[in-house]
Amino acid sequence: MPALDLSATSVDLTRAICDIPSVSGDEGVLADAIQDAIGRLAHLDVYRDGDTIVARTDLGRAQRIVIAGHIDTVPINGNMPTRDLELDGRAHLWGRGTVDMKAGVAVQLKLAAELVDPRVDITWMWYDHEEVEAELNGLNRLSASRPDLFAADFAILGEPSNGQVEGGCNGNLRAIVRTHGVRAHSARAWVGENAIHKAAPVLARLAEYRPREVAVEGLVYREGLNAVRIRGGVAGNVVPDLCEVEVNYRFAPSRSVERATQHVRDVFAGFEVEVVDLAAGARPGLDAPLAQEFVAAVGAEPRPKYGWTDVARFSALGVPAVNYGPGDPHLAHHDEERVPVDQIVDVERGLRAWLTSS
Amino acid sequence: MPALDLSATSVDLTRAICDIPSVSGDEGVLADAIQDAIGRLAHLDVYRDGDTIVARTDLGRAQRIVIAGHIDTVPINGNMPTRDLELDGRAHLWGRGTVDMKAGVAVQLKLAAELVDPRVDITWMWYDHEEVEAELNGLNRLSASRPDLFAADFAILGEPSNGQVEGGCNGNLRAIVRTHGVRAHSARAWVGENAIHKAAPVLARLAEYRPREVAVEGLVYREGLNAVRIRGGVAGNVVPDLCEVEVNYRFAPSRSVERATQHVRDVFAGFEVEVVDLAAGARPGLDAPLAQEFVAAVGAEPRPKYGWTDVARFSALGVPAVNYGPGDPHLAHHDEERVPVDQIVDVERGLRAWLTSS
Repeated sequence: MPALDLSATSVDLTRAICDIPSVSGDEGVLADAIQDAIGRLAHLDVYRDGDTIVARTDLGRAQRIVIAGHIDTVPINGNMPTRDLELDGRAHLWGRGTVDMKAGVAVQLKLAAELVDPRVDITWMWYDHEEVEAELNGLNRLSASRPDLFAADFAILGEPSNGQVEGGCNGNLRAIVRTHGVRAHSARAWVGENAIHKAAPVLARLAEYRPREVAVEGLVYREGLNAVRIRGGVAGNVVPDLCEVEVNYRFAPSRSVERATQHVRDVFAGFEVEVVDLAAGARPGLDAPLAQEFVAAVGAEPRPKYGWTDVARFSALGVPAVNYGPGDPHLAHHDEERVPVDQIVDVERGLRAWLTSS
Repeated sequence: MPALDLSATSVDLTRAICDIPSVSGDEGVLADAIQDAIGRLAHLDVYRDGDTIVARTDLGRAQRIVIAGHIDTVPINGNMPTRDLELDGRAHLWGRGTVDMKAGVAVQLKLAAELVDPRVDITWMWYDHEEVEAELNGLNRLSASRPDLFAADFAILGEPSNGQVEGGCNGNLRAIVRTHGVRAHSARAWVGENAIHKAAPVLARLAEYRPREVAVEGLVYREGLNAVRIRGGVAGNVVPDLCEVEVNYRFAPSRSVERATQHVRDVFAGFEVEVVDLAAGARPGLDAPLAQEFVAAVGAEPRPKYGWTDVARFSALGVPAVNYGPGDPHLAHHDEERVPVDQIVDVERGLRAWLTSS
């Protein structure tokens, strides 16, 4: 097991944990390393569930906040290990996970180790399976088994937000759109019906789709509808009887899950649609007193969060939550994922300043 | 290993070998059973190459013919084991392989065992991997390692032809049509390019395509262009950077492989096209003297063969070849694949009559 040095700079710590691969489902090695390093700290109570690590201060403060980050990444695509990179005269750390979201996790690990006397009690959460189906998500699992750990006045997720405070998040729906045909030998295709050919209008509607931009509580959310997978086919000489297009709809937090579902069914009217994953968005939630104090301390104009993040999970539990982390969310999941080094330092400074203020 | 009783009726023998699964790549058990049963016959010299079995008479006849059949099938899809079925008052045997082409193989096995004194020398060939890439094909492999075994004046393939003589065959081309994009997080799709959406025109062209019908030496060949596979996608929240559509083009034997390739490139102009499998068709070849004698003995009007079959392989080696076997080729690879029992008996009678005539 690689050892983590929590006294290193947050930049070096980012590099170290990015170089430990942790694609969803394969977080064990990194979770072990975190548990080992955090378990040595006397001021934290540590709890583990699967590959999720929870560490809590218990100082009897009047208020408690949760600070959380996921430790998994999307699949590696030639972008590991990390590299140092200068871009327009600015130092960057390049590689899978640098943006989404190991730089944020590195800052959290460092502050968890160093802040022995914060102004509020803190529950740190580092969790698995954020990049895949909601039912596998470590926070989801933990909220069912240990809801008591989620009792808090405010939550901060370290999701990439360019070091700005991003409020709320879009909702997230995945559905399978299916076309059916009749199998036949491809040499006599006219006795079959080609399910892949029948999917032509499904792809055409996706290609023509123009997503909305929706203002919610003063923040403008941008939607999106994308095919994320397609599959069909039996053998090289068989007219296929099934084609499946998996689509992903990101919808503004003002749209309910019911209306989002209906919208997808409307877009693919005439086709079989099965919703396989569905999560409500979260309204910005910036009117909570702790949220306002936090925004003031960090000193930034709040923006909307486009991507679904686990702030929605806290929001659903009645805990106001915002995103605050280093890295440009536009580069999340990108092959050229990279984080400006100064943003890591800034986020560390912002969080430290607020958590140690009196 | 299941034992084959070659003294059973050709119908019972069909049932027996259909109930031994032999999807391409998994022919070993059936090949073992055939080798064991055929190896007991004193009048045949038996040779094995991989899962291909060759058995030859050596009677010093002036002429030699090849009679061949493949022993593999396309994947099983809930259509195994076989069932007896009555349809419009006619007895059928239903299940994977009954049409393509174990009924033909069963007839061949029975005749190989019983015809100890045929009018011509016979080279029987039962071979593997017909339903997949050409380079895996057992006949292809054998023609490279033992070209001497292919020396013959005429060849009969037992491919399903409704008990009629079908001449020549269409050519066969498989190609991958690729679209490329840029990966991104699906919550911020506007910074990526969706490769699956870009495949919309590929599917539209396939759906709109109208295949030709082409007369060659008096027989009319019907062409076809079909998607046989489609795939694309990285993860449920990633805009994919690659989509691949595998297409299968069946073209009349009057069209060269070069012109067939150009046609596919023209249809998908503007897209990346990679040809992955390409086999010329075969002209009918019914002017060979043995072919004319055979057609006269069987007493049927020759028809065109739509599907590519290994007659093209013999044709390329200078051996005229026809298809003659039980089963409706329209039902090959179909989930409801089934052969009329009387066609099995008829084909056995036709082959036996010609091979024992003086």
